[in-house]
Amino acid sequence: MTNISFWRMDKALALAKHAAIKGEVPVGALILSKNRQIIAQAENQMVRSCNPAAHAEILALQKAGQYLGQTRLVGCTLVVTLEPCPMCAAAAMHYRVDRIVFGAYDPKGGGIEHGARIFSHRQSLHHPEIIGGVQEQCCQRMLKTFFLALRKQHSKFLT
Amino acid sequence: MTNISFWRMDKALALAKHAAIKGEVPVGALILSKNRQIIAQAENQMVRSCNPAAHAEILALQKAGQYLGQTRLVGCTLVVTLEPCPMCAAAAMHYRVDRIVFGAYDPKGGGIEHGARIFSHRQSLHHPEIIGGVQEQCCQRMLKTFFLALRKQHSKFLT
Repeated sequence: MTNISFWRMDKALALAKHAAIKGEVPVGALILSKNRQIIAQAENQMVRSCNPAAHAEILALQKAGQYLGQTRLVGCTLVVTLEPCPMCAAAAMHYRVDRIVFGAYDPKGGGIEHGARIFSHRQSLHHPEIIGGVQEQCCQRMLKTFFLALRKQHSKFLT
Repeated sequence: MTNISFWRMDKALALAKHAAIKGEVPVGALILSKNRQIIAQAENQMVRSCNPAAHAEILALQKAGQYLGQTRLVGCTLVVTLEPCPMCAAAAMHYRVDRIVFGAYDPKGGGIEHGARIFSHRQSLHHPEIIGGVQEQCCQRMLKTFFLALRKQHSKFLT
């Protein structure tokens, strides 16, 4: 059950696309309730809010907590277009989400299947289900296109 | 150079104490500029803001970024009474702080010297200087006193 419509990755991708238009690294995130209703959504805001911790996942988790009026997002799923970094993975742990679904794997910055592997330590207080690679190519393509355009823009400035 | 006055751990402890009075896990954090002026300070706000990600470190980093109007806290030091969790350690990495100084080690929840060991992976984009155990006993005592009182209060409810 990892198809795009099941986890609403289409919606997360639309948020990522909007972030790219605004000059942000294109990452979009959703929080789904137990019955897979979208209860919160966010896109990267690092550039616009001048805050390197304003990742889509953190913002979506905070919105969901506010929406439900609780600190534990029991039964909820974090859906995000890119493998969360260690900060966001640990935040999802603090919020006790049931499941993390992500699109593109991130060997450089990811913190679930790479690097810090947040949930692989015995100190991890919580072990959500992890489903990676949902609509992977589409999520990956969006990031590659963004960084390619950014590099072109930079090289234009340098020539 | 790990004495209390040098790193202003006295101020971080005062913030932690205030947090405890408000019913929060007593953790206080500061951001020091290159010349060790306090440019931001915060205490845990998880209970009051109904946000499990509102750790003292995250809040202090955000305040410092806003104060300086920049996303990179180059030359700055994060001073905190407890070893940062993986979320806060990774946030400090995103903010590119030069140094992290902490009081009590945290074998259960810490993410620098324990568990995820955020800066020990080759994926870590940034490697701040780490100074742990500054005014350790004082920081540890404050946490122990808080949790002892909490347990007593809970057992009172149960009897």
